Amino acid sequence: MNDETSLYPPLAEIGLGNYAPYLMNRIMGRYNASLRAEMADLGLTTPKMRALAVLSVQDGPLVGELSLLTVVEQSTLSRALDQLQAGGMIRREADAADSRAVRVFVTDAGRACFETLWPHMAAAQARMFRGVPEDERRAFVGTLQKMLANIRRQGS
Amino acid sequence: MNDETSLYPPLAEIGLGNYAPYLMNRIMGRYNASLRAEMADLGLTTPKMRALAVLSVQDGPLVGELSLLTVVEQSTLSRALDQLQAGGMIRREADAADSRAVRVFVTDAGRACFETLWPHMAAAQARMFRGVPEDERRAFVGTLQKMLANIRRQGS
Repeated sequence: MNDETSLYPPLAEIGLGNYAPYLMNRIMGRYNASLRAEMADLGLTTPKMRALAVLSVQDGPLVGELSLLTVVEQSTLSRALDQLQAGGMIRREADAADSRAVRVFVTDAGRACFETLWPHMAAAQARMFRGVPEDERRAFVGTLQKMLANIRRQGS
Repeated sequence: MNDETSLYPPLAEIGLGNYAPYLMNRIMGRYNASLRAEMADLGLTTPKMRALAVLSVQDGPLVGELSLLTVVEQSTLSRALDQLQAGGMIRREADAADSRAVRVFVTDAGRACFETLWPHMAAAQARMFRGVPEDERRAFVGTLQKMLANIRRQGS
């Protein structure tokens, strides 16, 4: 423990219910659990769902970029992409400029699959924010954006 | 898609960077990654770290309660608890009222291990909130608490 790190009060003093990473983890756990049945109906897992979600917005990323954006480790993501490809949901193509680099594209079937899941994701999010006024919700998302900018690193 | 779920604008319209679950997932991914080296130095994984964190605040929960509070599936948690027990960090005891129910207690060694990690967790959290004024941070945690209350279910 150095001088910088010894400044923090213990977790027991802060309380789990006031520690933001704990709260975010609990909330994301419920959000993911609430989508499990709908994902299973579509043959999706969390990594597959996240890949389709990102590709629905930003098509053609490098596999490494997709790993970063989905927060899924490359080895896990590769297996998920194999399964999505076998199901005709995505295709992989060598990058035009660097033939060793692989880009990922969503197919019409992949897009349709995500469009079936999306209303359930949006409804799960709406349940999370139930009773939270629009301005508070906007402020909350604004704080999240600052936090992401803070902890982002070069290439991550 | 039913009438309720067809009301939501598509993700591409909202944008990943405005979708709260996406932002929370990205932030938690960085938070966890930033602790990986310190956890590895202490022989901890994310499930083990979460178990020690919860036990440092609330000692003696049932295994099922600990699974809920750590957001770690019971099978994964059981393996983590086996390893923590082998390392002398926790002990398990039959519940006084129901001998089939198992409660988990942290040992002095487990507490000391978490106290070594905690300043790094607190520092990672402080980095997340860098430049976020105290009142905005308090409002953010308040919104998280509302969200957790919203998506909590009976027994979860």
